[in-house]
Amino acid sequence: MKQDKHTIYQKQGFGGVSGFGQRCALILVDFVNGFVDPELLGSESIAKAAEQTVELLTFFRQRELPVAHTRVVFDVQGANHNVFTLRVPALKKLTETAFESQIVEILKPLPTELVIKKQSASAFFSTGLSDWLTFHCVDTTLIVGCTTSGCVRASVVDSMQHNYRTIVVSDCVADRAQEPHDANMFDMQQKYADVMSKQSIMERLYSLGGKLP
Amino acid sequence: MKQDKHTIYQKQGFGGVSGFGQRCALILVDFVNGFVDPELLGSESIAKAAEQTVELLTFFRQRELPVAHTRVVFDVQGANHNVFTLRVPALKKLTETAFESQIVEILKPLPTELVIKKQSASAFFSTGLSDWLTFHCVDTTLIVGCTTSGCVRASVVDSMQHNYRTIVVSDCVADRAQEPHDANMFDMQQKYADVMSKQSIMERLYSLGGKLP
Amino acid sequence: MKQDKHTIYQKQGFGGVSGFGQRCALILVDFVNGFVDPELLGSESIAKAAEQTVELLTFFRQRELPVAHTRVVFDVQGANHNVFTLRVPALKKLTETAFESQIVEILKPLPTELVIKKQSASAFFSTGLSDWLTFHCVDTTLIVGCTTSGCVRASVVDSMQHNYRTIVVSDCVADRAQEPHDANMFDMQQKYADVMSKQSIMERLYSLGGKLP
Amino acid sequence: MKQDKHTIYQKQGFGGVSGFGQRCALILVDFVNGFVDPELLGSESIAKAAEQTVELLTFFRQRELPVAHTRVVFDVQGANHNVFTLRVPALKKLTETAFESQIVEILKPLPTELVIKKQSASAFFSTGLSDWLTFHCVDTTLIVGCTTSGCVRASVVDSMQHNYRTIVVSDCVADRAQEPHDANMFDMQQKYADVMSKQSIMERLYSLGGKLP
Repeated sequence: MKQDKHTIYQKQGFGGVSGFGQRCALILVDFVNGFVDPELLGSESIAKAAEQTVELLTFFRQRELPVAHTRVVFDVQGANHNVFTLRVPALKKLTETAFESQIVEILKPLPTELVIKKQSASAFFSTGLSDWLTFHCVDTTLIVGCTTSGCVRASVVDSMQHNYRTIVVSDCVADRAQEPHDANMFDMQQKYADVMSKQSIMERLYSLGGKLP
Repeated sequence: MKQDKHTIYQKQGFGGVSGFGQRCALILVDFVNGFVDPELLGSESIAKAAEQTVELLTFFRQRELPVAHTRVVFDVQGANHNVFTLRVPALKKLTETAFESQIVEILKPLPTELVIKKQSASAFFSTGLSDWLTFHCVDTTLIVGCTTSGCVRASVVDSMQHNYRTIVVSDCVADRAQEPHDANMFDMQQKYADVMSKQSIMERLYSLGGKLP
Repeated sequence: MKQDKHTIYQKQGFGGVSGFGQRCALILVDFVNGFVDPELLGSESIAKAAEQTVELLTFFRQRELPVAHTRVVFDVQGANHNVFTLRVPALKKLTETAFESQIVEILKPLPTELVIKKQSASAFFSTGLSDWLTFHCVDTTLIVGCTTSGCVRASVVDSMQHNYRTIVVSDCVADRAQEPHDANMFDMQQKYADVMSKQSIMERLYSLGGKLP
Repeated sequence: MKQDKHTIYQKQGFGGVSGFGQRCALILVDFVNGFVDPELLGSESIAKAAEQTVELLTFFRQRELPVAHTRVVFDVQGANHNVFTLRVPALKKLTETAFESQIVEILKPLPTELVIKKQSASAFFSTGLSDWLTFHCVDTTLIVGCTTSGCVRASVVDSMQHNYRTIVVSDCVADRAQEPHDANMFDMQQKYADVMSKQSIMERLYSLGGKLP
């Protein structure tokens, strides 16, 4: 008889917890116009996740904790096109000045916040994000954004591989379809990251007093 | 009404093809004893995928095409333990001489084949694999191994991010549970890699004549 | 008696040759206004190296071979400041729109050429340059730019580490001072890269006929 | 009239200081038998630097601060040979069990210390060293080893690029020839790292009391 995935993973010792370290950064993955619109590359649930993120971003800004945003940006004339654009040509529309590639108004970066322009799935891949986190003495990342099964998943795996204690904020990530969202939340929680709600994270950070944040 | 994931992905332009380039490498991810045993970290379907891989490995060896194997190897005394072992302590058993961390006998590496010892999910992460592929003029990777939702997925994403045309060999990858296997095959095929059977790959390589391989 | 460096390096087997592979890219490191001006961060010899590079760039453009330029670009409000700016605060002036950080007019990139914005010494460090070279099937890099002892040296070391056959174009690199230039040319030639004049490179590429380039 | 390098670098704002952060790691680069022997790839001054390092290593061990060693190790049958071995064939002798590639007896790693096997110049390149430093909450690296103009320089540049405050221990680094040693000490101090004597570092760490180390 086939065993349920939960039973198998539990038996083999997955699903552990990495917890919080000493200092958190908030990483907002690809909350851009093109990904909150179901008619482009997004969905309504992504738009909701963006709305949910406003409170968390404000929380981080008030405490002057490190915040990084990512956007997908490709050259108009294709100089940095790659295997990703070969497979998903729709990505080519995300050029520097295109409406689709601008970060949504409600999460607009401050001039003091890092904005990473990437051409891959992971926020960490060839972007220097991990080195920026080193400079800011961060050991814990909170990851929000879209899509759960795409750039969020890729960023979460890399965040753990770079040895950051990694937390996926469950109500601030979303996908263009429900099934991949659910499947990837399972994978991430079993292997790579803690999964916590926005509320429980803020309570936890409050309870840590001045230290974290 | 909620739309089916296939409908949404097709409408938004996912599911493209990257195809073959000029020169392939075969990358065998974590086919070690510990991952083919359901009582340890594996499953029967992973054992079957390993058996299926024998023919493909022979095909590559006969043509003297580049072959790389990966193993997960941690230090006995913990010097290279990391967030991954913090979350999945069972990985600590995979030490240099442990039975669990040896590559399965039927796929035993030749002394001329690259064997990568890794401490993360991706075969590419901090291992120099992409640089080795550069040295061997490879532009196309065939990925086999386990688990589909773990190290295979992470390796496939990185392979594409490094701009290799990436092909997941459908009958030579497997997982410890069926549902994550299926979900990750969908994600990879939609976004990161072509999915082909072993047979269709070998036929394709034959048909390309002397060139590839 | 102290031995001469040339004697020691020769005896120990340094100074080998890596030669040309099948396909070259031209990488122009930091030929920006701020580095050709002795009153800013540059020197006259850097201005001369930039002039010498015009012919080589034209040669590459005529053959439609891959060309990449780098600029150092820091955020106006400091979001991506790092240990480099901590040590060399003058670098902070190199912002997106500053005159100092624009590529010199005579080497102005075409819209089809890759322009990398970096915050470190190496053109490869966290920039995705190696992945772009993979996409363009490059196995050989020609490196020009400034400064020899700074970003050129760092880029050359990384180019070799990524397994590109690396060639420093001797008349198209320069430094703000002669002594570091000479010392670094010695180091690079002994360990990391072939050193060739522009003329000998172009003759070599001609003689290879249609293949390279 | 040509200006002296010191004058030029000072005028243009180089030679700054990055100092100490909160937590140091000691990184011993390539102190292996083959590099302390003038008849192989080394010199007497490298043997002296190794002797000088014993006290510093003891200091770090007593305080249980992170220590990492590197060795160059190539496969006997050449599976991981690369452009470096193409240029410097003598490196191929440095195999896993070769006397030349063993760390010198007086600095023999403890089983709890990280030992990195590398095939490139930089201790950081494709080795996961930066991720290990992240796991151990390190923000400051002390670099010792050999050779100054080779693997030390490459490691120091990468250490700074990864945003570690980097300190070269002046009496614990050496080269196979004096001139490249001196030239690279200048370059590193001007651009990438603080240069301090072993004694001044230990005094500084003492004065910081319990905090650092």
